[in-house]
Amino acid sequence: MALLLQTFPERAAIWSRVFSEAGEPLVCGADQVSDPAAVRYLACWVPPPDLTIYPNLEVVISVGAGVDQMPKMPEGVRLCRTLAPGIEEMVRDWVVMATLMLYRAMPVYLEQATRGQWQTHGVPLARNGRVGIMGMGRIGQLAAETLTGLGFQVSGWSRSGAPAGGVEMFSAEELDRFLGQSDVLICLLPLTGETRGMLNANLFAKLPEGAHLVHAGRGAQLHMPALRAALDTGRLASAMLDVTEPEPLPQDHWAWADPRVIITPHVAANTDHREGAEHALRVVRAARAGQPLPGLVDQARGY
Amino acid sequence: MALLLQTFPERAAIWSRVFSEAGEPLVCGADQVSDPAAVRYLACWVPPPDLTIYPNLEVVISVGAGVDQMPKMPEGVRLCRTLAPGIEEMVRDWVVMATLMLYRAMPVYLEQATRGQWQTHGVPLARNGRVGIMGMGRIGQLAAETLTGLGFQVSGWSRSGAPAGGVEMFSAEELDRFLGQSDVLICLLPLTGETRGMLNANLFAKLPEGAHLVHAGRGAQLHMPALRAALDTGRLASAMLDVTEPEPLPQDHWAWADPRVIITPHVAANTDHREGAEHALRVVRAARAGQPLPGLVDQARGY
Ligand SMILES: NC(=O)c1ccc[n+]([C@@H]2O[C@H](COP(=O)([O-])OP(=O)(O)OC[C@H]3O[C@@H](n4cnc5c(N)ncnc54)[C@H](OP(=O)(O)O)[C@@H]3O)[C@@H](O)[C@H]2O)c1
Ligand SMILES: NC(=O)c1ccc[n+]([C@@H]2O[C@H](COP(=O)([O-])OP(=O)(O)OC[C@H]3O[C@@H](n4cnc5c(N)ncnc54)[C@H](OP(=O)(O)O)[C@@H]3O)[C@@H](O)[C@H]2O)c1
Repeated sequence: MALLLQTFPERAAIWSRVFSEAGEPLVCGADQVSDPAAVRYLACWVPPPDLTIYPNLEVVISVGAGVDQMPKMPEGVRLCRTLAPGIEEMVRDWVVMATLMLYRAMPVYLEQATRGQWQTHGVPLARNGRVGIMGMGRIGQLAAETLTGLGFQVSGWSRSGAPAGGVEMFSAEELDRFLGQSDVLICLLPLTGETRGMLNANLFAKLPEGAHLVHAGRGAQLHMPALRAALDTGRLASAMLDVTEPEPLPQDHWAWADPRVIITPHVAANTDHREGAEHALRVVRAARAGQPLPGLVDQARGY
Repeated sequence: MALLLQTFPERAAIWSRVFSEAGEPLVCGADQVSDPAAVRYLACWVPPPDLTIYPNLEVVISVGAGVDQMPKMPEGVRLCRTLAPGIEEMVRDWVVMATLMLYRAMPVYLEQATRGQWQTHGVPLARNGRVGIMGMGRIGQLAAETLTGLGFQVSGWSRSGAPAGGVEMFSAEELDRFLGQSDVLICLLPLTGETRGMLNANLFAKLPEGAHLVHAGRGAQLHMPALRAALDTGRLASAMLDVTEPEPLPQDHWAWADPRVIITPHVAANTDHREGAEHALRVVRAARAGQPLPGLVDQARGY
């Protein structure tokens, strides 16, 4: 009935402590497994190529917030992602920061500063800015709440368009109307077959002139040449990216040197090891008790 | 019973419209004054050197949020600053942005980006950060509210230490204890005889090691050589300044080129001309009706 954890030593040490305090068995590393049939739960970023070596495997837990790095699961194996309030708050903070940075022209001021140039530009009021959030899940809703509190006119877009975050919602079919009123477009979508490459020329063309892009979803959602073209035509005024394709972004990539683009190296959040371990503990106990698994992924949908 | 406005044409045009819509007399520019005895109210950034040419002057209105640029008023002349919700929200947004930028190591990531370097550093949770706000007036309270909402442990410092913004307050005498627990120190103080030069070596020495400084008060409150020294010893990790002394900051000033310092050219807010005119209208009408003046300054205190 054990959880097998495959990860680096620092995380393993903390998980070991949390599991031993909870009186739950934990095995760190495949080489420590004496009886593969005893492994019911596996926590990892990417699993070993052949999961059938664990004949009684029930649940795989991604140690991150996303599962887009995961291969297809064997028949009957359920997949969970890590839910941790810390992750969600961290990404919310990064998104709020990035939205303010672009809306308040930080790329322009940072570029001026390299030349010691003191030149002011008009100061826009948050309440005159329209923010559109793609992906109104756990993180999108948190971001919507803070941005609404600052006065921004926030709306959201999700597959269902179901009420979320107390803001005006648009459904999948209403994408064009949603884009047309997004002065700042925030991407917080999971990477799936449907969202891969979605931030492309076709989409940018539907934004208001001079819009801004905040991207904290996944790098493969953004077509970088389309981003560059949209910046060059002025369709986009600036962009802030926490995720790129590939990661790390190569040192000689044009985006590093473009003053209209600000890049952070996938640091909108990192999983606190203790929170991650506590989530895994909840999954294991829920599975054993036959209760709904926290963070369960709909594998057909991909998130 | 007229208000004399001394300002640039763009602002004058909007004030003229607001005052004429309200049926209130407005004179734009001293050269348009036919009877100096009719001038009861004067709105300007800095008044003419000799105010005694207007023998019936009652109130001077600063067209900005501060009055530190104003000379001593003649006996009996009251002084008001501009109160406008737009200004306060704009400064709040800049302060929230700057706090997140420093707390989330943007100076480090921006510097790395100049070299195309993808290197992550630990991601701190807002709820583990202690933010201290110097000056818990109209703007300080707004900033406290948003930062508290993000989870930061916020406290405030003011002359009185009176309850404000729903956060733990420290009074003038408790400055050292306040500083000792401010991982991010935000200055939102008015410039007065007491606050001039206050952000100095002595003050920085009382901050926790590796603290951050967010400065949106007035340039003359900050001793720039002390800032540099505090950055060099590591007492301060980074600083973000919207105000400097002098303004504009000279092009060859060291702070422009220092990656630990981010400078914006006094753009935390600008006064919306319509909001400014509406405030002046409220002052004129309150004065005439013998009611309390909005934005009245205590000239002995200096704010
Ligand atoms: N940069 C970082 O460090 C970092 C850290 C954590 C997470 N993230 C990213 O943030 C994403 C969101 O996280 P979360 O916890 O908020 O996810 P979540 O709770 O699963 O929410 C996902 C949202 O996306 C919507 N969505 C999914 N596919 C869609 C489609 N094809 N069309 C329209 N809407 C679609 C969903 O719509 P429905 O509500 O209709 O289902 C839902 O609103 C993660 O998947 C990850 O990519 C990044
Ligand atoms: N960068 C920009 O673009 C920009 C724009 C607007 C304003 N500002 C700056 O922001 C400042 C604050 O504006 P506000 O509207 O919030 O002012 P406010 O409502 O007058 O509040 C001033 C606060 O400072 C405190 N204070 C004053 N002198 C003090 C002293 N010697 N020791 C301790 N506390 C002291 C006051 O304490 P009490 O509550 O005890 O009186 C009060 O809490 C302005 O004066 C201006 O310098 C900057």
